[in-house]
Amino acid sequence: MDQRLKQLIESIDQVNSDIANTVIDRLNGLTKPKGSLGKLEEFALRYCLITNKTSPPSLNKAVLVFAGDHGIAEEGVSAFPKDVTFQMVKNFLKGGAGINVLARHVGADVKVIDIGVDHDLHDIPGLVHRKIAYGTQNMLKGPAMTRQEAEQAILAGADVAEDVIKQGKNILATGEMGIGNTTPSSALTAAICQKMPREVTGRGTGIDKASYEYKIRLIEKALAINQPDPTDPIDCLSKVGGFEIAGITGMILKACQMKIPVVVDGFISGAGAIVAKALCPLVPDYLFCGHCSVEKGHKIQMEYLGLQPILNLDMRLGEGTGAVLALGLIEAGLKIYKEMATFDQAEVSPGNEAI
Amino acid sequence: MDQRLKQLIESIDQVNSDIANTVIDRLNGLTKPKGSLGKLEEFALRYCLITNKTSPPSLNKAVLVFAGDHGIAEEGVSAFPKDVTFQMVKNFLKGGAGINVLARHVGADVKVIDIGVDHDLHDIPGLVHRKIAYGTQNMLKGPAMTRQEAEQAILAGADVAEDVIKQGKNILATGEMGIGNTTPSSALTAAICQKMPREVTGRGTGIDKASYEYKIRLIEKALAINQPDPTDPIDCLSKVGGFEIAGITGMILKACQMKIPVVVDGFISGAGAIVAKALCPLVPDYLFCGHCSVEKGHKIQMEYLGLQPILNLDMRLGEGTGAVLALGLIEAGLKIYKEMATFDQAEVSPGNEAI
Repeated sequence: MDQRLKQLIESIDQVNSDIANTVIDRLNGLTKPKGSLGKLEEFALRYCLITNKTSPPSLNKAVLVFAGDHGIAEEGVSAFPKDVTFQMVKNFLKGGAGINVLARHVGADVKVIDIGVDHDLHDIPGLVHRKIAYGTQNMLKGPAMTRQEAEQAILAGADVAEDVIKQGKNILATGEMGIGNTTPSSALTAAICQKMPREVTGRGTGIDKASYEYKIRLIEKALAINQPDPTDPIDCLSKVGGFEIAGITGMILKACQMKIPVVVDGFISGAGAIVAKALCPLVPDYLFCGHCSVEKGHKIQMEYLGLQPILNLDMRLGEGTGAVLALGLIEAGLKIYKEMATFDQAEVSPGNEAI
Repeated sequence: MDQRLKQLIESIDQVNSDIANTVIDRLNGLTKPKGSLGKLEEFALRYCLITNKTSPPSLNKAVLVFAGDHGIAEEGVSAFPKDVTFQMVKNFLKGGAGINVLARHVGADVKVIDIGVDHDLHDIPGLVHRKIAYGTQNMLKGPAMTRQEAEQAILAGADVAEDVIKQGKNILATGEMGIGNTTPSSALTAAICQKMPREVTGRGTGIDKASYEYKIRLIEKALAINQPDPTDPIDCLSKVGGFEIAGITGMILKACQMKIPVVVDGFISGAGAIVAKALCPLVPDYLFCGHCSVEKGHKIQMEYLGLQPILNLDMRLGEGTGAVLALGLIEAGLKIYKEMATFDQAEVSPGNEAI
């Protein structure tokens, strides 16, 4: 394994839970029945533990949208043509996509990264240029990426995360764009979570039953041809993954190392997250699961990560849309922790919750 | 029935669904797979239908927090002393309560209404003064309110809603404060939805098992003594309800009449909403259910209203906290509808969703 990657993984610490009681005492002193704000209180506690701060600053939020193309798209696994990947990258940079609207709504910056788009985008201003290759290879004909490419893509994701964290971001959301990318995500989830392709494959952007059965057969074939080793996450990622998935793995690993929480979006982001956990079992303690995707394999990923989704709004767009909506709720929890009056401050009689 | 109230109920129109296709066509032309933003798209459609506008303006949001006291509180049904009602009213006006923090987070104004607090609050600036009485009577000893008081409280709620809508608010959230108010809410839900008290009674602010059994017995007794008529919603409301619940019923009826959507908070707000539906079956078409409360009777209310909750965050604070968080998500849906680029605008190839 690349030495930088090895060091990154080894430098991730356990979350320090020593401050938990301090945080819980403050939450219990606020003018509300104990625990009555449910998950909002859990969000605040989790944020404090991850960042190891009992008085966290205001949130400074960003979503990182990694874009890459997929050789498998030539097999007709998506309802959209492959060119939509680069067309949507341009849409992101003009502010017209779903992720732009929702990120503005919650006050998060959008960073768009070309990590493997099959189109020349070098002259696009505002884009982060980390292209590893012009799309992956068709995994029906061999590995999607070389092992070295997969590691480079992870490190590229880590570098982008490091840059935005150094610029002051203290919570990140994952996002992605890549026509055909539910197919490698299903293949990767099957390989790492050791499930049958049918258990982890959904209808992506919206394909019919015949196309769905065809998609499952392609995934079965890709796994049979490539034989990913479930004990070797980089082997799985390189053979049946994708550049944007690897970028998400990298951003998660770097954020964990730097003690910055990451809100994971849906199924493709989840594929990046399970690779990160397979590389370092401490990873899930630093994550929030933004929402429950309609894609059925997402539940398998969440079980593997041991996370509960914050939202369940029947969304399946990707881009980071579910994660940024969840950012807004996590921020609400932190504001409760920081801004609510205590019983003493407000001169409100505390309850006797033992009656 | 009071003539003004009768006229209010009779003047509520059906939601006009003629514009649905126009709204759906626009949603389907945005740069995303059809329907891939799930409930966000449904929120936009529902908002447009309720307001009968295909180009709705930006949201101008308010939460109305009705505060009232309950005679039943003297039976020790809450973990908090009754004085907490007026103490929390003061906390609301100073901006230190949960509802203040969350309303600020989503950009909603907070209006606090004294509709029945058992404390002299006439000198509190910023409070809306619509006190009908100094708390309800103890429903173990007879009706909580007279029929006339209940109708006055509904009309007071309607007046407050009319004022804020005339001031430009175009979506409202319900909120409330009243120590002991899960008990009348359970009694009212049992009466109107024709359920056993045990099926609709939860642990409120957090009482233990013995107190819970005691609370159920009190509700059974209150229903046996008062014999509310399930075919007469005002009879039920006056005998086993409360002033803040009646205020919520009134604000909902007025908003329906004025074609303004209402986001219903948790269990106490739900009690107000089921009375509104019992008075006018068209009401639920104008409502959003903000969140699923931990209080078990809330599910019964949602079934009665035919609504699905937007959020499920294990919250049970009330005040409108769940409803204002949902306001933020409804606004996200409307922004998607208004701000996203179309395939044409962004020069993105539309998909072939029939493959």
